[in-house]
Amino acid sequence: MWQYEAPLRDMRYVIEDVLGLPAQWAALPAFAELDADTARAVLAEAARFATEVLAPTNANGDLEGCTLADGEVRTPRGYKEAYRAFVEAGWPALACDPAVGGQGLPQVLNAALYEMLAAANHAWTMYPGLLHGAYECLHLHASEELKQRYLGKVVSGEWLSTMCLTEAHAGSDLGLLATRATPAADGSYRLKGTKIFISGGEQDLTDNIVHLVLAKIPGPDGKLVPGTRGISLFIVPKKLVDTEGRLTGERNDVALAGLNHKLGYRGIPNTLLNFGEGKYPVRGGAGAIGYLVGKPGEGLRCMFHMMNEARIAVGLGATMLGYAGYEASLDYARNRPQGRAMGPGGKDPAQPQIPIIRHADVRRMLLAQKSWCEGALALELYCARLVDELHTGAPEAAAEAGLLLEMLTPIAKSWPSEWCLEANSLAIQVHGGYGYTRDFPVEQYWRDNRLNMIHEGTHGIQALDLLGRKVVMDGGKGLQLLAGTINATIQRALAVPELAGFANELAAALAEVGRATKAAWATGVAEEALANAVPYLQAFGHTVIAWIWLDVALCAHAKLGQGAAADDEAALRGKLAACRFFYRHDLPKVAAWLQVVASRDDTCRTMAEEGF
Amino acid sequence: MWQYEAPLRDMRYVIEDVLGLPAQWAALPAFAELDADTARAVLAEAARFATEVLAPTNANGDLEGCTLADGEVRTPRGYKEAYRAFVEAGWPALACDPAVGGQGLPQVLNAALYEMLAAANHAWTMYPGLLHGAYECLHLHASEELKQRYLGKVVSGEWLSTMCLTEAHAGSDLGLLATRATPAADGSYRLKGTKIFISGGEQDLTDNIVHLVLAKIPGPDGKLVPGTRGISLFIVPKKLVDTEGRLTGERNDVALAGLNHKLGYRGIPNTLLNFGEGKYPVRGGAGAIGYLVGKPGEGLRCMFHMMNEARIAVGLGATMLGYAGYEASLDYARNRPQGRAMGPGGKDPAQPQIPIIRHADVRRMLLAQKSWCEGALALELYCARLVDELHTGAPEAAAEAGLLLEMLTPIAKSWPSEWCLEANSLAIQVHGGYGYTRDFPVEQYWRDNRLNMIHEGTHGIQALDLLGRKVVMDGGKGLQLLAGTINATIQRALAVPELAGFANELAAALAEVGRATKAAWATGVAEEALANAVPYLQAFGHTVIAWIWLDVALCAHAKLGQGAAADDEAALRGKLAACRFFYRHDLPKVAAWLQVVASRDDTCRTMAEEGF
Repeated sequence: MWQYEAPLRDMRYVIEDVLGLPAQWAALPAFAELDADTARAVLAEAARFATEVLAPTNANGDLEGCTLADGEVRTPRGYKEAYRAFVEAGWPALACDPAVGGQGLPQVLNAALYEMLAAANHAWTMYPGLLHGAYECLHLHASEELKQRYLGKVVSGEWLSTMCLTEAHAGSDLGLLATRATPAADGSYRLKGTKIFISGGEQDLTDNIVHLVLAKIPGPDGKLVPGTRGISLFIVPKKLVDTEGRLTGERNDVALAGLNHKLGYRGIPNTLLNFGEGKYPVRGGAGAIGYLVGKPGEGLRCMFHMMNEARIAVGLGATMLGYAGYEASLDYARNRPQGRAMGPGGKDPAQPQIPIIRHADVRRMLLAQKSWCEGALALELYCARLVDELHTGAPEAAAEAGLLLEMLTPIAKSWPSEWCLEANSLAIQVHGGYGYTRDFPVEQYWRDNRLNMIHEGTHGIQALDLLGRKVVMDGGKGLQLLAGTINATIQRALAVPELAGFANELAAALAEVGRATKAAWATGVAEEALANAVPYLQAFGHTVIAWIWLDVALCAHAKLGQGAAADDEAALRGKLAACRFFYRHDLPKVAAWLQVVASRDDTCRTMAEEGF
Repeated sequence: MWQYEAPLRDMRYVIEDVLGLPAQWAALPAFAELDADTARAVLAEAARFATEVLAPTNANGDLEGCTLADGEVRTPRGYKEAYRAFVEAGWPALACDPAVGGQGLPQVLNAALYEMLAAANHAWTMYPGLLHGAYECLHLHASEELKQRYLGKVVSGEWLSTMCLTEAHAGSDLGLLATRATPAADGSYRLKGTKIFISGGEQDLTDNIVHLVLAKIPGPDGKLVPGTRGISLFIVPKKLVDTEGRLTGERNDVALAGLNHKLGYRGIPNTLLNFGEGKYPVRGGAGAIGYLVGKPGEGLRCMFHMMNEARIAVGLGATMLGYAGYEASLDYARNRPQGRAMGPGGKDPAQPQIPIIRHADVRRMLLAQKSWCEGALALELYCARLVDELHTGAPEAAAEAGLLLEMLTPIAKSWPSEWCLEANSLAIQVHGGYGYTRDFPVEQYWRDNRLNMIHEGTHGIQALDLLGRKVVMDGGKGLQLLAGTINATIQRALAVPELAGFANELAAALAEVGRATKAAWATGVAEEALANAVPYLQAFGHTVIAWIWLDVALCAHAKLGQGAAADDEAALRGKLAACRFFYRHDLPKVAAWLQVVASRDDTCRTMAEEGF
């Protein structure tokens, strides 16, 4: 089962030492009251909750899955009790505005909380996983009346939220949405349409569910506006609510139409929801009653925060599944005896067996996991810090943080989805045949993690966002800002002899990324530039993680120079080794990925369909 | 469900055109009677059996799994009937010696048969998957009396076989085996010990099971000889057999002690077997009755063929799971409309949706699968051809084939295990969210395929075999032979302007592999040389597959020059595109992997355990 000591220490290391946040909080009016001890206490308590309450429900939740009886979803044993404890402890409100019942703590601590939860039981964590995003969305865009009805319950976690975007015929292509929202006389709307892939679209954890639904308001001709401009955002509650936020006792016309049977995340149902088909007629007719959030046609803009938070949350969850697998395989490798030590002349069968952690290849698999998962964790916490700066910093700093966040979101989402999944595969491999059985948790982590390259925008979508939009917007302003930020780290590392070599390698990789970006767009033809967007995303991601590692290594080096305690010293030297691993084993792949980008290689783009 | 047309055409293309086997068979006395039409008829019938009889049992077999009732294993519905049809059609005897009831056809056709079976239902295919290896082992090493009792039933498939090596405390370290074989007065032995991870160790498909078991005969002091020199091989039947090969009605003392619950391959039980614990006392006492195969202490040598065949069979199965996923995702991509065409200025939402196969990134994912799976298939068939040459060729050619086979076995086992698993992940990705559900077969392929990097020698073991033994044995004779064979392809391709660029890239990769091999061993210190054996295995494997692709492309180019029919032409151009994909997107990774090998990078080897 999940043990929190090492990742907790790691999170504290990133938050306190690498990012130096306690000192920065003091400078921000919003967090001026927050000191390092309080932050530590929050982290420790989050770790305790995740380990003691949540982790014991993980394996069973996967085995049991969600069941359907009389149109109602039953969550696995223990999920409900864990959720109740979560709400009672006040965790949902952690990073919400005190003005609406929140605790006003930084997003960094909220991210750390969700990291703990995800490592302990990721399927369960997906239930409250959209809470904060829904809070942001309503807080920023809903009318005062809607806030009065819903916001408090969302902040407290008493009600959970969903994000209803996808429709079967449209997939990633939101412009084709066909869910229709017809205005009613009282200012509300009636929605009709079917949404798929809605996680937690039905559950027994909360009395009500606040669905946030994208739909189109028909024009005067009764037709829907084509494209994404026609999309608006609505609150559609499962049960109707009075002006004080109390249930009226009326069920809204939202019906569960089916569950998907999934590879992983089996503790949370993935649902098909029918809005307004008339299964639960309400207030005199069919049609799900919904309330407009923000202005008509601005649905995507209103959901933007929620979507961006969801993307970072995906990366964060992927990271922690990787981390949980790393910890499990490390534990196995320390305790499983097998094989003999390799001497200069090979192995001597007369020697006693050794724990497999002493074999170089097992260490390679552990170091790979360590460098991928700890690197990703540092990136995710850095992004959470940018969110805090965006929300609470001075205008210029906030704008800069927002731009960096835009640049890094595709990486924060996609990179852990790919590499921490690969880490899970190595965690299985370290276990040998046992890793393929249900007796160890690693196969579940691997299955769970496979979704993360798909939902909230696939790898392909993230790649188009990065190369097609983010690096070229405003004449490349975002890319320049990120490159400048990376260069600042490079400059610092060049001054440290042990790290100067890595700094030069990172500078070379960054220059290659820059050249490839220009070369991809050299003809200005989008289909040529974007034909190899995914290899570009991979190369960009590796460069970003190499930068993060150099930053982490600089901090470790500095702390070692100050003279650290013995076990701290071992951990800090471990950080330096993981950084070295990433530079030696992983960073050289950047050149391989960029070749096709820089040459605008057309192998994929021009492949004849009948040739497959 | 699995459709065989495309892979059948592909197998015929490799067998007839790339390898030119029909002409070579005519020159070999053993296959002089075999013509291309007969071989085609065998392939077509194998495809029909796999598709019509076997494929319908695949998804259900996974869902249902094997069940245990009263100590007996029940296989999933339809498995028994499919196995009966398989035996009745005479498939098990396909490539066995006619002198013992076989059909005497080439191993290449047997490989193609098992490829069809594996693509249709890999879990089921594992039941007869060891048949041919057991036949080889008994045919070569068993006494006439044992052959009289067992060989006919193994050849006909009436009884299935298992390979019982692993013990819980020993894992890959066979020298530690503790199963004890005590000689009895009548020349037989009594075995006591426990074996784990035995696929099909108990089943309801056949009346008897012929376990091939590694155990140690105690010395005069009653102690077991340490290390692998003490290991002998035994036949231990589940039920005893008289001298004519009939069941005597006595059950041997072999007891099922448990089943593993697995990530995949759920249609075949993975068992824990107790030999001789006294659960089924037999002929007056406890102890499983066994019969020595070959000489005492030569157990590993006797099992060598079976193990090597099993390793190639793992690669072959991994390949076909990849292939099945490729076909499934290709079908999905052709039929799923989503998104708009990318024009020079980007996407135009006013255009109608297009099938996703038209998006460059979907083509990238399909081309990657195609290049990995078709490349692996060609390698596996090439290896099967080497087996035929080893068994039936003139002495010099046979020796050369045997040496090439030794070099290529670690690649044939490991490369598809890694890259066709990656192909399965891309097949999921092409399906988007649907790929994560049980409504499509790709998630099962991915789960099934994950075992293949583990069993029959992990990636780490294959890497040590390659870099620690194969490339250095006999002063590097095997590596020189393989390099010479690859160079012959390079020379031919240099003469073809369209392929000369690839030939040069392959030559460069091959030279880098050679340099890295020398550099790894430059100090002669095994632990330094072998510290990065897995990256070496990966680089070596990519170089081998690049060679295979160049061979395939040469053949396609020649056929196009001769003027092919229209649909043949499209397929041949598809081969050229897949070759190009592999050279542009994959081969550049070789340099990244070899850096750590050539520099004898010690990051992993010297990592401090307390730094993790």
